[in-house]
Amino acid sequence: MSVAAPSAVLGKSIIAGLRTDGGDGTVMAVNPATGTQLDPSFGLVSMGQLETATKAAEAAFDTFRSTSPEARAAFLERVADNIDTLGGELTERAVAETGLPAARIEGERGRTVGQLRLFASVVRQGDHVQARVDPAQPDRAPAPRLDIRQRHIGLGPVAVFGASNFPLAFSTAGGDTASALAAGCPVIVKAHNAHPGTAELVGQAITRALDESGLPAGVFSLLFGTGRKIGQALVADPRVKAVGFTGSRTGGLALMKAASERDEPIPVYAEMSSINPVFVLPGILEGDQSQLTDGFIGSMTMGSGQFCTNPGLVFVPEGTDGDRFVDSAAAALSETAGTTMLTSGISEACAAGIEGMEQAPGVSRVATGKPGGTENAPAPALFSTSAAKFADAPALQDEVFGAAGLIVRYRSTAEMVEVAAKLQGQLTATVHCTHDDGSDVQVLLPVLERKVGRILFNSWPTGVEVGHAMVHGGPFPATSDPRSTSVGSLAIHRFQRPVSYQNIPDEFLPSPIQDSNPWKLNRRVDGAVEPA
Amino acid sequence: MSVAAPSAVLGKSIIAGLRTDGGDGTVMAVNPATGTQLDPSFGLVSMGQLETATKAAEAAFDTFRSTSPEARAAFLERVADNIDTLGGELTERAVAETGLPAARIEGERGRTVGQLRLFASVVRQGDHVQARVDPAQPDRAPAPRLDIRQRHIGLGPVAVFGASNFPLAFSTAGGDTASALAAGCPVIVKAHNAHPGTAELVGQAITRALDESGLPAGVFSLLFGTGRKIGQALVADPRVKAVGFTGSRTGGLALMKAASERDEPIPVYAEMSSINPVFVLPGILEGDQSQLTDGFIGSMTMGSGQFCTNPGLVFVPEGTDGDRFVDSAAAALSETAGTTMLTSGISEACAAGIEGMEQAPGVSRVATGKPGGTENAPAPALFSTSAAKFADAPALQDEVFGAAGLIVRYRSTAEMVEVAAKLQGQLTATVHCTHDDGSDVQVLLPVLERKVGRILFNSWPTGVEVGHAMVHGGPFPATSDPRSTSVGSLAIHRFQRPVSYQNIPDEFLPSPIQDSNPWKLNRRVDGAVEPA
Repeated sequence: MSVAAPSAVLGKSIIAGLRTDGGDGTVMAVNPATGTQLDPSFGLVSMGQLETATKAAEAAFDTFRSTSPEARAAFLERVADNIDTLGGELTERAVAETGLPAARIEGERGRTVGQLRLFASVVRQGDHVQARVDPAQPDRAPAPRLDIRQRHIGLGPVAVFGASNFPLAFSTAGGDTASALAAGCPVIVKAHNAHPGTAELVGQAITRALDESGLPAGVFSLLFGTGRKIGQALVADPRVKAVGFTGSRTGGLALMKAASERDEPIPVYAEMSSINPVFVLPGILEGDQSQLTDGFIGSMTMGSGQFCTNPGLVFVPEGTDGDRFVDSAAAALSETAGTTMLTSGISEACAAGIEGMEQAPGVSRVATGKPGGTENAPAPALFSTSAAKFADAPALQDEVFGAAGLIVRYRSTAEMVEVAAKLQGQLTATVHCTHDDGSDVQVLLPVLERKVGRILFNSWPTGVEVGHAMVHGGPFPATSDPRSTSVGSLAIHRFQRPVSYQNIPDEFLPSPIQDSNPWKLNRRVDGAVEPA
Repeated sequence: MSVAAPSAVLGKSIIAGLRTDGGDGTVMAVNPATGTQLDPSFGLVSMGQLETATKAAEAAFDTFRSTSPEARAAFLERVADNIDTLGGELTERAVAETGLPAARIEGERGRTVGQLRLFASVVRQGDHVQARVDPAQPDRAPAPRLDIRQRHIGLGPVAVFGASNFPLAFSTAGGDTASALAAGCPVIVKAHNAHPGTAELVGQAITRALDESGLPAGVFSLLFGTGRKIGQALVADPRVKAVGFTGSRTGGLALMKAASERDEPIPVYAEMSSINPVFVLPGILEGDQSQLTDGFIGSMTMGSGQFCTNPGLVFVPEGTDGDRFVDSAAAALSETAGTTMLTSGISEACAAGIEGMEQAPGVSRVATGKPGGTENAPAPALFSTSAAKFADAPALQDEVFGAAGLIVRYRSTAEMVEVAAKLQGQLTATVHCTHDDGSDVQVLLPVLERKVGRILFNSWPTGVEVGHAMVHGGPFPATSDPRSTSVGSLAIHRFQRPVSYQNIPDEFLPSPIQDSNPWKLNRRVDGAVEPA
């Protein structure tokens, strides 16, 4: 356990352990529930300061990537402990900066430290190294085979962008940072300016953990800066070798472009937008629907709908059972009040999205919730259209970030599947069904597998488990790269690459592939796993 | 074993099993040793024909990706058997089209069928599915956990570009095709126009294997077309979900650009260029050097230097031992004759590259080999420069594809390491050393790990083993994506993505993650591997 340490929000970036005043203007946090500015002001870094951070990250890389599983795991656990130690100060600041309730922030802190500890266990277990040994075959004909071994190493310094909607779990010490550090990569975080004080407190926790672990301070930096300018510069920096981002499609596309235009293009993991279609099949609509519609409205309006996995699209059959679903959902929504959104900008964009849906041809408003009692708390809204209209209007697939939903009425399974096949890539798809819907499910599932990263039955996509089997990802434009996940232990593979070693004497081999297996790894020998 | 089947070079593309005349002009193969054209002419496909192929691939994807491990493995083995069955006809055609000796073609065929069988064994073993189960925890507080499972599926149809320098092992049924098929992805091959007859024969072998296996013909198509036009169209086709390419940097960069500009960007695995630096440390130069210099010249001139792993750059210390190395290498090269290059264009580009090196400031010619006795068989060439000059001339890092080498003389370990750190990404780096060089090695190795995909000691990079620990890849510009390999069993992961399944009844789950584990896979349960 780490000791408690004094911390304070000073409005300073952390550049390789040094609390640093900005050199390019300032920004202040705003309490979105009241519209009031929060002290202190945060200094924005200059290009030179950014470069100091990336240089330090590059310099720290070899030391950090060489850490033993135990040392790296213990460091990740210290980060978790130090975040826990921040106590009420962190909750209070995060609530003030985001308008999210204290219970939600506490829950998100639990998730954040939980995922740091999960990655510690993954690193300690060691399978992520993917050690392989193909022993020499000196007598092989026609030519002998030399000894060849392989392990995975970190890609290098990783740029991580804090997300507005998860000030802890997808930000400074969130999933991208945790998985990059677990993979042995130094991390430079561009803080989200909507919660800079939260970022600074967490950044101090990471920096203290480095110090307590005897690791180079350059392994972590936290930068405040204007989003576009510093963000682009960070992705363009030749020392940065990968990018993790959660945010808007516009932001993600800009980072993808910057990364692909570098002299050395680098991987970008951008989690961007998803409307998370829900397919309500006829069988589930027989009898009482209240649990279903309450679940839908609860998931759609939870946290003002500010979740990547918010169910924004629900396919419901035509007919009386479907009509009952719409009526019941409308009734539930009418009783639901809006809650404070993360920023005034997000609230305005949500209102504009709802207005856009209102104006869309063939779309009608089904219900409106109540406005919340604070600033930036718009009323939730629910709309309806037909499958035929939806299929003809690609703009209806644009995410409205907030508590807004669209019900799409379909005439037949065939029509539903046909429209499903036209959906863009999504993080999730949900099916609500009974055994009676089996034949429809069999047709729908293969279509969904090609569209999404996670398929759910009879549950709701919000509330993403941090585990070993979780995939929080999916085909473009849900993410920039469908080959991985941003939640769960599989994420460690994002930031690694394989290196092989041929005919190298044991004394010069890295520990994971030395003959004596000092790290006690499970290794694949000639393709077959040989347990430690 | 498959039955022998009549095959013939008809000059026709194979579109989902159908032998198809072109609709956009013709091309003929040329024997590079004689300059004569080879019958027949090959019809080039139209855009409509290309689309027929990609539509068939998309339509076949669900069936093909659902095949059991045994069915998919048996199919890959049938492809291998059918290529073996092609016998002398394949060797004869490939020799005529490439100018490569029959023994090399036979060896490459062995490698090609060997890697198909390796992927069959990988698929049959099943770990590539990466099945994971996080069981439900109904009693967990504060909220129960639902059952979540994960498996990897194929990305979708893959476009593969045949490579000029490996008419079998990196072409129609080469590593990219084998790994994509193993991952459950249909493949559309754009044949290399330098060996179209070879491509057609191998394409028939694949098509026959599909038929014999009762699999949809759309799983494979082979297209003849003008490189740029059809290649770009193939990568731009919305049904194509990934690209495999081995060739020039120009070609690879064009495909990367096309893929990133799609509405849905897709992964490109382009293996482009590498000069494969060799570091000769002082210890190895004491005493007799003949084995070392013969090895170098042999590796550099093998196959006219037309290997991705050709050692084009050798770091040698200044001083008398280094001088002896240069003299000895020069003597060996002077006795070495050029051999036929793959095409007149490649031969001309090689001559231009050698001329460019001749003209480069601070570079001097050390030795010239003998011209070969055929067309397109330029004399090998060896040059020398200083580490300081090399560091200042980035153009000297451009690959000269052919039997050309550059010796870089360094004054100290520090200078050598400093220049190594300035190298672009490479497929391989080789160190020649003894135990006496240990301290130099310790400094050099971490630098090389960040630059290359494979590090070798006291051997030569040409001759890439197809195994489980091989990495044939590396940082840009050696490849477009350092996170994988184009040779060896790890390549199967290129063409996969994870999908998770939450709260789904067993009857609707795919086989690999059903409770009864019908495919007998090793699965990770709550993070720990549970053997089948």
